[in-house]
Amino acid sequence: MKIKISDLLFGKPLASSDERAEHIGALAGIPIFGLDALSSAAYGPEAALTLLIPLGLMGVHYIVPVIAAIILLLTIVFFSYRQTIDSYPHGGGSYTVASENLGEGAGLLAAAALMIDYVLTAAVGISAGVGALISGVPSLQPHTLGLCLGILAILVLVNLRGVRDTGVAFMVPTYLFIVAMLAVIAIGVGKVLISHGHPVPVIAPPSLPAMSAAVSIWLILKVFASGCTAMTGVEAVSNGVMAFRPPTNGNAKKCLTVIIALLIAMLGGIAYLCKAYNIGATNPNGAGYQSVLSELFSAVTGRGWFYYGSIASIVLVLALSANTAFADFPRLTRAIAENDFLPHVFRVRGRRLLYSHGVWALTALTAILLIAFGGVTDRLIPLYAIGAFMAFTLSQAGMVMHWKKQQHAGSGWHMFVNGTGAVATGITTLVVLVAKFVDGAWVTVLLVVSMIALMIMVKRHYKRIAQEMEYNSPLHLGHLQQPMVVIPMAKWSRLTEKALRFALVISKDIQVAHVACEQQPEGLAHLWEEMVLGPARKAGLPLPELVTLESPYRLVVMPLIAHVLELSKKHPGRKIVVIVPELVVKHWWENALHNQRSQLLKVLLELKGNQRIVVVNMPWYL
Amino acid sequence: MKIKISDLLFGKPLASSDERAEHIGALAGIPIFGLDALSSAAYGPEAALTLLIPLGLMGVHYIVPVIAAIILLLTIVFFSYRQTIDSYPHGGGSYTVASENLGEGAGLLAAAALMIDYVLTAAVGISAGVGALISGVPSLQPHTLGLCLGILAILVLVNLRGVRDTGVAFMVPTYLFIVAMLAVIAIGVGKVLISHGHPVPVIAPPSLPAMSAAVSIWLILKVFASGCTAMTGVEAVSNGVMAFRPPTNGNAKKCLTVIIALLIAMLGGIAYLCKAYNIGATNPNGAGYQSVLSELFSAVTGRGWFYYGSIASIVLVLALSANTAFADFPRLTRAIAENDFLPHVFRVRGRRLLYSHGVWALTALTAILLIAFGGVTDRLIPLYAIGAFMAFTLSQAGMVMHWKKQQHAGSGWHMFVNGTGAVATGITTLVVLVAKFVDGAWVTVLLVVSMIALMIMVKRHYKRIAQEMEYNSPLHLGHLQQPMVVIPMAKWSRLTEKALRFALVISKDIQVAHVACEQQPEGLAHLWEEMVLGPARKAGLPLPELVTLESPYRLVVMPLIAHVLELSKKHPGRKIVVIVPELVVKHWWENALHNQRSQLLKVLLELKGNQRIVVVNMPWYL
Repeated sequence: MKIKISDLLFGKPLASSDERAEHIGALAGIPIFGLDALSSAAYGPEAALTLLIPLGLMGVHYIVPVIAAIILLLTIVFFSYRQTIDSYPHGGGSYTVASENLGEGAGLLAAAALMIDYVLTAAVGISAGVGALISGVPSLQPHTLGLCLGILAILVLVNLRGVRDTGVAFMVPTYLFIVAMLAVIAIGVGKVLISHGHPVPVIAPPSLPAMSAAVSIWLILKVFASGCTAMTGVEAVSNGVMAFRPPTNGNAKKCLTVIIALLIAMLGGIAYLCKAYNIGATNPNGAGYQSVLSELFSAVTGRGWFYYGSIASIVLVLALSANTAFADFPRLTRAIAENDFLPHVFRVRGRRLLYSHGVWALTALTAILLIAFGGVTDRLIPLYAIGAFMAFTLSQAGMVMHWKKQQHAGSGWHMFVNGTGAVATGITTLVVLVAKFVDGAWVTVLLVVSMIALMIMVKRHYKRIAQEMEYNSPLHLGHLQQPMVVIPMAKWSRLTEKALRFALVISKDIQVAHVACEQQPEGLAHLWEEMVLGPARKAGLPLPELVTLESPYRLVVMPLIAHVLELSKKHPGRKIVVIVPELVVKHWWENALHNQRSQLLKVLLELKGNQRIVVVNMPWYL
Repeated sequence: MKIKISDLLFGKPLASSDERAEHIGALAGIPIFGLDALSSAAYGPEAALTLLIPLGLMGVHYIVPVIAAIILLLTIVFFSYRQTIDSYPHGGGSYTVASENLGEGAGLLAAAALMIDYVLTAAVGISAGVGALISGVPSLQPHTLGLCLGILAILVLVNLRGVRDTGVAFMVPTYLFIVAMLAVIAIGVGKVLISHGHPVPVIAPPSLPAMSAAVSIWLILKVFASGCTAMTGVEAVSNGVMAFRPPTNGNAKKCLTVIIALLIAMLGGIAYLCKAYNIGATNPNGAGYQSVLSELFSAVTGRGWFYYGSIASIVLVLALSANTAFADFPRLTRAIAENDFLPHVFRVRGRRLLYSHGVWALTALTAILLIAFGGVTDRLIPLYAIGAFMAFTLSQAGMVMHWKKQQHAGSGWHMFVNGTGAVATGITTLVVLVAKFVDGAWVTVLLVVSMIALMIMVKRHYKRIAQEMEYNSPLHLGHLQQPMVVIPMAKWSRLTEKALRFALVISKDIQVAHVACEQQPEGLAHLWEEMVLGPARKAGLPLPELVTLESPYRLVVMPLIAHVLELSKKHPGRKIVVIVPELVVKHWWENALHNQRSQLLKVLLELKGNQRIVVVNMPWYL
């Protein structure tokens, strides 16, 4: 049995009828669709606390209301998306919902925002994971970009194997991360309760200075905007409903519920314990930096095997959170391509039932981002989250319109739920945009606008072609006329003889075009009678005509093309068939050994030709 | 009038009849064919003196006999090559001479040695020039590689414009260099004579320590081997005889005489003055390094405008010496390709009558070498000069055989001249090979062997194909049978209608192959009668058959190919014509918008097909 490398790497090809078996249950969906959302807990609160550093000890007190606001927002979004899953069992991403209910413009806005956000999710997830790893093993620092691209390569391989295998690969680290987080929060909360609110840290976090700056509304808004990065990724489930095993909706909703509940528990627990243990962020650019979660784990459990195991799982989960983008981006681009706004290749499913061109596109874009920013997370963060919140808003607003159209009992309540979501996320989008605009959000805005322009151009192109190609009449059989055949011939050989025989079968008008050259000054004329005319006359066939073309510039291809174009001008209405004899080599490198004139001839005939010029490849297998 | 960018960059295309005008005189030949040889004076003596550093003050005394030996060798080679020019007025490179007189094996050895040496000439010339520039302007150090590649780009542009323009571009710096060198030598020798052998240096060179190591035959041999780099490039004239204006031989010999005389004057002058002024080399890797020529110019004339002007001309000439390789490498590869040992593209002359593929190949190889070695000369030098001396030896030995065959009066004397050359350069080759083997000459040996193997493979391939394609019989007209036509059709459109009309003209057996897919479950069957069969029946034409292919793996191309192959197996002896409808887009980027199935179909049909499967491109211009 021959084992193919492609099978080992990507798995065996799957038939369309194998499809059902690739569907997943609610629990298996958590690592696939929840990794991004859950791993946000590792950087969301820290991003908020970092902006609170100037407030010193007092700043820690503000984290609780900020996180509370985010949890409230998360709850609103949760109920909103539950309704979306029910209404769109075949996948209700923001793009689908917005374009179906709010029109094309809103749909394109959502599409652009989501695509950009997925690429950023992949890039930020990978670079943050590598960043965390490097904080642990500083000697890896010089290999940052290499590590990032290595992880990207692993993600691609795992994803091209298909959905189910992905679930298995990501389940273990995700559950380790969840267990570690919940355990620390439970132990910590227990210790706080036993000590009546004054726990003694096992290892004390760096002490916080007294207040050194005044609090302001603007600062709190910026803190909130940064903390909102904790919410990225929660829309993934509603986008991928169809990946679940039946009952599809039920499993998807269960999965969403578990993910949001876990995220709320983590965010709430972190905020509560930070306040109780007086844990603030340390300066990420200064010496002695330590992540908030590292401080928290040290304070609650000390630095034993549990600490190091938990940190390892955080590193892993951060890096793998990029996988949410891999699960969802190809589905999104497929949906957009179905509406002709992206090239149709995104609709083609690969050997493992995935939309593999989407995987490749995401990989390429992520690699570009990682290389452009050297794999450094800090520079990417300000571009991030705006796309997600734009999409949230459009999705909820779209759902409002969806219910409005339905007008059945209970649609009022549904409208209220989604309306609350739309207003809340809409306000948040504005806050995030304003708070981060100068730091980099403008790049995202620019990209969104360019993407929309690109998609509109693609759609226009497909529309134009569809109109041009449309043909609803029956076969038209008037004016059927034999084509004129032109055969370029450098010398009389087995191959050119074969071409001439073929020409004699399909037409009576045959020209053999010979370009005069230095090496062969006598041309073909001296053997024409013996080799061609004689036998043709004897067989009573039409006589092929020999045309010798002059070439003062030693070019071979250009005179041939000029001759063919001239001929097509002289005979309007007739087809010109150009037979291009071609050697087919066994090994690709042998192509370097034959002058590429036949290739050049074909390309130039296509470029300069017209509707009536048809090229025939006459192969000769060596 | 429309001005083309390509005309501005490369000059207007030249017709074959313009050729004569591109030929050059003896004086104009010096910069073109002599730059490499003459610029060697700038590093040859220094390479020898560097190895004499351990001998201190005493070492300077040994430079005179070593250079004397090199000058003797140069004189022998000069007379040898004069005879070659007379015997080979159409270009008597070592390759031609060795393969004509010593057989194919010797020819291939010469060819490989020369090709490698030309690439090294280009790489060493450029990197040495940049190195000299950087010694002058140390702040350019970080841009070494960029400067190297920049100079390479300029050389390519200048050379693609054609031979004459090159002469003009290189004449000024070459003559400046020659004048500066000769002036310094004349002034220096004058000062030595006036001072009765004890000149007072204007700026004293770094003082040399007393002898610190014992002299040995082995050391002197290594010094000689290093000094021999001064001889590289002298074969260029004999290679390019045909570039001269008539009287071709006379002009070429004049040019060679001037070049060798200048080189001997420079080498002798440098050696004489080094001894008189006690100038030794400084450690090239240590602080306070100064080139020998810089010491010499300072000692004779001080550091005024003359010093800086001369150093600038040395920098320029070193960098441009690479041009000798550009003038000669394309001619060499053309000669090798004429004998089928290299791909035939090397025989094709470009728009400016140059063998432009040779220029591109040299450029690519040089760029690879420069990038691999970071543009650092030191690492390239040990690979250098072996190729040149191998070629010298083979060329002289070939000339000996040439005279032996002729047996006319005077051929005895000719044999003696070339025989002396062969023995002298043969011994030198061995010395250089042994002395430099460990330092890098082994790389050259390895490359020579690989190149020979490659060339033999190329020749074998061309021979096999020529045998297979050879056909001396007249056109065979038995068994002419109409082909079977297969048209892949996804849906009924203007384009597929056009393809069907064409098929009806060339054959009676027509199959339309439709791959069943998810998007179009009803297929084409429902409109077949109305759109195709009806009109065909009415016109009394053969009825095309509709074949629907199943595709469980959602692939479109593979089922089509399997069908075509099946058909060709079922109908042995008949041609299968596959008509591939294709959209021709206006802009290259629009190709991304149409799924590339037709391209894939064509490529796979060629790969998996056979002699009887013919592909027809049916274009539709949008």
